[in-house]
Amino acid sequence: MIGHSAKIPLPSLKRLPGYVHFLRSLKCEGVATVSTTAIGRALRLDPTQVRKDLACTGAEGRPRVGYRVDDLIVVLEEFLGWRNVSEAFLVGAGHLGSALLGYEGLRNHGLDVIAAFDSHPAKVGQDVHGVKVLDIERLPGLARRMGVHIGVLTVPVDAAQEVAERMVEGGILSIWNFAPVSLQLPEKIFVQNGELYAQLAVLLRRTEEAVSRKTPSTPEVA
Amino acid sequence: MIGHSAKIPLPSLKRLPGYVHFLRSLKCEGVATVSTTAIGRALRLDPTQVRKDLACTGAEGRPRVGYRVDDLIVVLEEFLGWRNVSEAFLVGAGHLGSALLGYEGLRNHGLDVIAAFDSHPAKVGQDVHGVKVLDIERLPGLARRMGVHIGVLTVPVDAAQEVAERMVEGGILSIWNFAPVSLQLPEKIFVQNGELYAQLAVLLRRTEEAVSRKTPSTPEVA
Repeated sequence: MIGHSAKIPLPSLKRLPGYVHFLRSLKCEGVATVSTTAIGRALRLDPTQVRKDLACTGAEGRPRVGYRVDDLIVVLEEFLGWRNVSEAFLVGAGHLGSALLGYEGLRNHGLDVIAAFDSHPAKVGQDVHGVKVLDIERLPGLARRMGVHIGVLTVPVDAAQEVAERMVEGGILSIWNFAPVSLQLPEKIFVQNGELYAQLAVLLRRTEEAVSRKTPSTPEVA
Repeated sequence: MIGHSAKIPLPSLKRLPGYVHFLRSLKCEGVATVSTTAIGRALRLDPTQVRKDLACTGAEGRPRVGYRVDDLIVVLEEFLGWRNVSEAFLVGAGHLGSALLGYEGLRNHGLDVIAAFDSHPAKVGQDVHGVKVLDIERLPGLARRMGVHIGVLTVPVDAAQEVAERMVEGGILSIWNFAPVSLQLPEKIFVQNGELYAQLAVLLRRTEEAVSRKTPSTPEVA
């Protein structure tokens, strides 16, 4: 459930996980209260921005004292939906899908992948990091029956559109798409692109440029 | 090495991995040639855009025939640096770091993580998916000696800045940063943020909004 009814700007929402990570580390160190100035210094953000971001979540600090670390963690985690973990289906139990299934951090960040799907007979029936791989044909029915609203898409690029449509058929509302293709889906469906390969392509290119900057004939990304 | 000396716009560069994925699937199906129209249709892109993107890489198609699939894969993979895999060091052998070390797809996309580092004594000396975990103290010296230029950062948020500085000390030029914090580093260092947690935060929020759209008092991301 959404913890607070305020509108929150997208950049603010994207900064919230960083705050929680930092607050958890403070908690481990036994720190009881924290100011927006201290948060800003640690995360290299303007304290006024931090204050605004936190205000969107309904968190309340006290003048001179700041925020109680424990309370602030709870407010932010509730706002982010990390305290009521959302269930998700993952499709594509290949290299990336398996890595994501093995990444225990997802659950701490609100996402619980409860089943995986694949079309390959050799993969169906297997157990990947404790998650059962089912036949893709069963996805729409199971998603409807179990009320699963999130799909994680880690299939090859040429299968992505078709699988996404199966997800939508099953009532899935949001897709985390790791296939490097732009999906065409009804407007009400939210697609978050993973951009892993795009990030990697830019990273490698920039590195090559930096390495070859010693020679004068270096190409650059425009 | 960079395969071609043309400037390439960032959005074009980001689309290249998708082309390679699609071309590989064509190759598997035994398709010998492909047109920009066919690529555009499959990946839902404007064919003119596809033609421009491919031109940046030096790939040459022939009128009416299109591109030879085999040749185009080679040109794009060389351009992306996937044929001369770049070596990288990863720091932070926790959940996310381990998942990335276990993700075999990185190597197919040009990145070979040859060693991992951690500050935790319990982790140092371990073997994670075939990669040795070394003491973080050894990173700067080893990076210099081995000429490693890429660092993958998967440490907790409060350690990220310090570890990034150690990377730079070791001559690392590019950092793939998965910690939800903005790093402050010399301008010449390229930082690609992984944005995993930010993506997930947006995904969960949008899903909650969509689910609760049935009730009239629904908050929305601004």
